[in-house]
Amino acid sequence: MSQLVQRVSEPGPWVLGIDLGGTGATGSRIALEPAGAALGSSRRLLPEVRTGISEGATNPLDVAETLISAVRVQWPDAPLAAVGIGAPGVASLAGDPAAELPRLVAAAGGASVALAIDAVTAHLGALAGSGGSVVAVGTGTIAIGTDLRSIWRRVGGWGHLYDDRGSGAWVGIEGLKAAILTHDGVTTDAAALLAAAVARFGPAPEWPAQLSTRDDRGAILADFAADVAALAGIGDPVATRIMSTAGTLVAGTLAAALDPRLPWRASGVGGVFEAGGAFIAGFEAEFVRLAPDASLIDPAGTPLDGAVRLARLVASGDAPVGHPPFLWLS
Amino acid sequence: MSQLVQRVSEPGPWVLGIDLGGTGATGSRIALEPAGAALGSSRRLLPEVRTGISEGATNPLDVAETLISAVRVQWPDAPLAAVGIGAPGVASLAGDPAAELPRLVAAAGGASVALAIDAVTAHLGALAGSGGSVVAVGTGTIAIGTDLRSIWRRVGGWGHLYDDRGSGAWVGIEGLKAAILTHDGVTTDAAALLAAAVARFGPAPEWPAQLSTRDDRGAILADFAADVAALAGIGDPVATRIMSTAGTLVAGTLAAALDPRLPWRASGVGGVFEAGGAFIAGFEAEFVRLAPDASLIDPAGTPLDGAVRLARLVASGDAPVGHPPFLWLS
Repeated sequence: MSQLVQRVSEPGPWVLGIDLGGTGATGSRIALEPAGAALGSSRRLLPEVRTGISEGATNPLDVAETLISAVRVQWPDAPLAAVGIGAPGVASLAGDPAAELPRLVAAAGGASVALAIDAVTAHLGALAGSGGSVVAVGTGTIAIGTDLRSIWRRVGGWGHLYDDRGSGAWVGIEGLKAAILTHDGVTTDAAALLAAAVARFGPAPEWPAQLSTRDDRGAILADFAADVAALAGIGDPVATRIMSTAGTLVAGTLAAALDPRLPWRASGVGGVFEAGGAFIAGFEAEFVRLAPDASLIDPAGTPLDGAVRLARLVASGDAPVGHPPFLWLS
Repeated sequence: MSQLVQRVSEPGPWVLGIDLGGTGATGSRIALEPAGAALGSSRRLLPEVRTGISEGATNPLDVAETLISAVRVQWPDAPLAAVGIGAPGVASLAGDPAAELPRLVAAAGGASVALAIDAVTAHLGALAGSGGSVVAVGTGTIAIGTDLRSIWRRVGGWGHLYDDRGSGAWVGIEGLKAAILTHDGVTTDAAALLAAAVARFGPAPEWPAQLSTRDDRGAILADFAADVAALAGIGDPVATRIMSTAGTLVAGTLAAALDPRLPWRASGVGGVFEAGGAFIAGFEAEFVRLAPDASLIDPAGTPLDGAVRLARLVASGDAPVGHPPFLWLS
């Protein structure tokens, strides 16, 4: 992480948005903006922040605290009014996130801090702070239908063991399921997936030791999902079926997060939506089937935009209402 | 474990069979028999042996060593000619099982020791030492087609994350998948499974902490499979579909372990085969479809019988040929 001190010319105060990555490879995204300017303008990005959190291994609030401190070192003359943080896994922490907010406030020099699960910052980015339903697809899959005040409808996000349908981890598992069947001679159609799995994990007998006991299993599986998506991209039929089914399942999760008390609109966030192909085709067809009268819109912004927006709302006194285990305010 | 010293009247030497349990709850089964009598006659059973191994937690060879020593304490005048051990997870040990056989030989007072994965002792029990294919369904699902000499065809048994189709862990996962969808409002048909999961694991938000990081996750999932099977037994449609699909998948695993170089016969071992119902219906229909000319026979004996048979074969000098990672001989 760069530690060069930088000067700012804009008047303060400033707002800080942090989109914490789920893994070291994913990294975290950080944006510093003048509170008085429009969202996204005069934005400073911390480059090359590889500090992320490993599934189950590191307290995301430790990472957040480190990043806030790094920002204050790098921009010492940009006093913070508020910090918005989106973090994966924060709802599964052993302790109460509310009890840890004071140390984030201290790290931020007394600024207000809002901590949200990553699905909420995805929502704030995609729907620009208005109500509706958003599904975030990364290592996991979670959808939230909310007005950020009184309605909070959550679907999915319970982990890859029995949920997170259509997520990166889910795609990775389905790819391995197909691969091991061809390895064992039960099927013959997944030779390409088997070769990809062997290239990534070694011979099949070595896979269990690499996957069964790792705390960052979800991230490893999601990495393999990139191989599955690539094979689907060149027409491999088994990989294509997996990606199409993933899209179908994600649409089901998103449709279930629609709430009649909210605007009847929805959006999907995550790299897989940009990749297109079988996933998108499966997703769009199923969503239209399940919710033909809902508006399916392109995201207005990223989860990082959502984290900055969260900080702006807090700084302006128009903060959303805290709602554990989705959103905590200092 | 009883430590009362017991006397034997039969002439020695003796053979010892050990069917190591996968979990403490499953326990281990131990039989001591005179080598000169027919298999199963004059058998001494060690009662109430709850010492088992936890998935990924304990070296099964430590448990085996303890049990062998306990037998020699309890029957001090029954010298051992050979010990046959069937153990789950032994193929996944970090070290080389062959390197650990000498300490088992020492514990057995110099007797020969044969160590097999549990699927091999299941095979030896079910087909009474003859060639063919056997599927063992417990926490996991693994099938072996073998003549115990030169042909070893393995299907499945790679763990519940991406394999072990139709196993106890698989059924438990499918039950939780159905339950969480009804919890989240995606479906409405799994209310009974949801209630069963809540009764066993508490409210849904508490499930991940109980399941995602536990090393004995497979056993916990298999415990929940009993709830799924019970619901299927009283006609719950979602549970019935899961059990039927489990039977179908197990049949696919078994059929893939048939080998044209072996007798064209097969058998299934595990408590779920005795429970009948949707599992058996699914299993039999699919096996007949996949292998209409194969003989599907009831098991001739249990995995414990198979462990004793393994010891007898070793004691008689007619031992099978060692074949890591399935069978190791001292």
